[in-house]
Amino acid sequence: MEKPYVVGIDIGGTNTVFGVVDARGSILQSGSIKTQKHDDVNDYVDELAQSLRSFIDQAGGSAKIKGIGVGAPKGNYFSGCIEDAANLKWKGCIPFAQLLSERLDHIPVTLTNDANAAAIGEMTYGAARGMKDFIMITLGTGVGSGIVIGGNLVYGHDGFAGELGHVIVRRPDGRICGCGRRGCLETYTSATGIVRTAHEYLETRQEGSLLRNLDPEKLTSKDIYDAAVKDDRIALEVFEATGRILGEAFADFIAFSSPEAIVLFGGLAQAGDLITNPIREAMQKNVLSAFAGKTKILFSELKEADAAILGASALAWESKEMN
Amino acid sequence: MEKPYVVGIDIGGTNTVFGVVDARGSILQSGSIKTQKHDDVNDYVDELAQSLRSFIDQAGGSAKIKGIGVGAPKGNYFSGCIEDAANLKWKGCIPFAQLLSERLDHIPVTLTNDANAAAIGEMTYGAARGMKDFIMITLGTGVGSGIVIGGNLVYGHDGFAGELGHVIVRRPDGRICGCGRRGCLETYTSATGIVRTAHEYLETRQEGSLLRNLDPEKLTSKDIYDAAVKDDRIALEVFEATGRILGEAFADFIAFSSPEAIVLFGGLAQAGDLITNPIREAMQKNVLSAFAGKTKILFSELKEADAAILGASALAWESKEMN
Repeated sequence: MEKPYVVGIDIGGTNTVFGVVDARGSILQSGSIKTQKHDDVNDYVDELAQSLRSFIDQAGGSAKIKGIGVGAPKGNYFSGCIEDAANLKWKGCIPFAQLLSERLDHIPVTLTNDANAAAIGEMTYGAARGMKDFIMITLGTGVGSGIVIGGNLVYGHDGFAGELGHVIVRRPDGRICGCGRRGCLETYTSATGIVRTAHEYLETRQEGSLLRNLDPEKLTSKDIYDAAVKDDRIALEVFEATGRILGEAFADFIAFSSPEAIVLFGGLAQAGDLITNPIREAMQKNVLSAFAGKTKILFSELKEADAAILGASALAWESKEMN
Repeated sequence: MEKPYVVGIDIGGTNTVFGVVDARGSILQSGSIKTQKHDDVNDYVDELAQSLRSFIDQAGGSAKIKGIGVGAPKGNYFSGCIEDAANLKWKGCIPFAQLLSERLDHIPVTLTNDANAAAIGEMTYGAARGMKDFIMITLGTGVGSGIVIGGNLVYGHDGFAGELGHVIVRRPDGRICGCGRRGCLETYTSATGIVRTAHEYLETRQEGSLLRNLDPEKLTSKDIYDAAVKDDRIALEVFEATGRILGEAFADFIAFSSPEAIVLFGGLAQAGDLITNPIREAMQKNVLSAFAGKTKILFSELKEADAAILGASALAWESKEMN
């Protein structure tokens, strides 16, 4: 193969991680820089390009690199820009793909958001290998999604499709969401959503719970998991309620794109059966009979530490030469 | 062009309509037969093939026909089968594409459901010409949908994607649906759904309404439209409630695939502003800000009488030779 490697870059609010990856998903070399160190995006791209340059040289030079894939908040696949990302300090439309490509011998740079990158990573190296229709749901601080239909990622007409964390699952009086609306899926099923559910249960019920021994201000989804594993009734019911809401939402997603699988990724996916049992039960109860039993619930097969780089890198295998 | 024509066939519960169509969407010749006349599907296909044979001969023979597209209830694009359609008498999986193709010189036959056919028709000849991302919503006796993403119809892994009439919009105590579940979009926004809403309003309120002069058993969506046009308060509010539920649902569909437009088709779409004003208002109120103002609400541009044949015929332009 003429160009055996790709580069994956994941731009997070705190760290930017990157690595050189081969076609089997092995990371040859990886590194990271601080995302917020530079006020001027050009200085940031300079530092990033300098680190990458040394990696690329060690891999045999830019002639060996098929492309660079980038996962970034509000990363637009069509424009190659980062568009007003809430958790980055650079405002307006940042033509990130262009800025990076022109510093690295015009290697093609492809950009999308992190959840989309995760979906392509899963399709290329992970649990969705060989699948043409699946949905990736990332259950982290928020709830993100990457949708693959007919083997292609769904970008929509504007490049921003796949915001399944923001479908409204409770109306009219759902929980207030960071997006300014009420009742979004992510207000119930993100790591913070599950903590909100636990607080509600602890406040409105009298029964004992291991969670009552903890500082309510510092309660985390991990604490709820730990209590649930010890058969704490309230913690178990929190997971059941969370899984039920996910399963109900998944039933509607299935009516839309009839995916072969829904792949779970992120912190909450670590809860295993605690979350998938109620998901499967609610899906079965709520899905249209034509789809019953057809869609699998799977966990990501990418190691959490590597997933961001692998996901972004997978984008680059599809990249075309730019002019 | 070597093969300048396609054939479109729409299999309805009562009539099967068909026609020969050119690349500009003109119907050269059309006809119909009764769908339910024959208990044996082979006799039905024989009669259909015989009618088509004479049309095809007049168009210059099968060498002039690029393909045959069929819209049928539960028509599966991948298998070419009609699979247990509720309103047809032939049960099990009917290999309709094969049965028809082998009677007509092995012209390729492509099958999908009627809402998907309508979407392709709109993309080929109608309001969605040139669009790569849109959703077609058919508001008739039921609510159907055809979803186009990246220029391709969404079939899902099993061929049955795009059942947006069956996303659940009211839980837990939504209206009972023909599908056996509760709260489906179609129970509120189909022609029968809007009549249910009118009945609810007439029963629970005291105020006068033109609708009270009609036999409640025979009330139709057309009656409600006629009353609304005359400024009947209850009829107007029925349309507002219906449009609001559609607009809320559309906001979630946009979070999924970020379409350039949502195209309305079918009886209720005839209501024009009465239905689109509340739809637009609810969409605006409910859509994630990143998508605000981006998705158009359009009406189908295909004449209702021709749409079924045109939609089905459009499928055939994409057909490949079969072996």
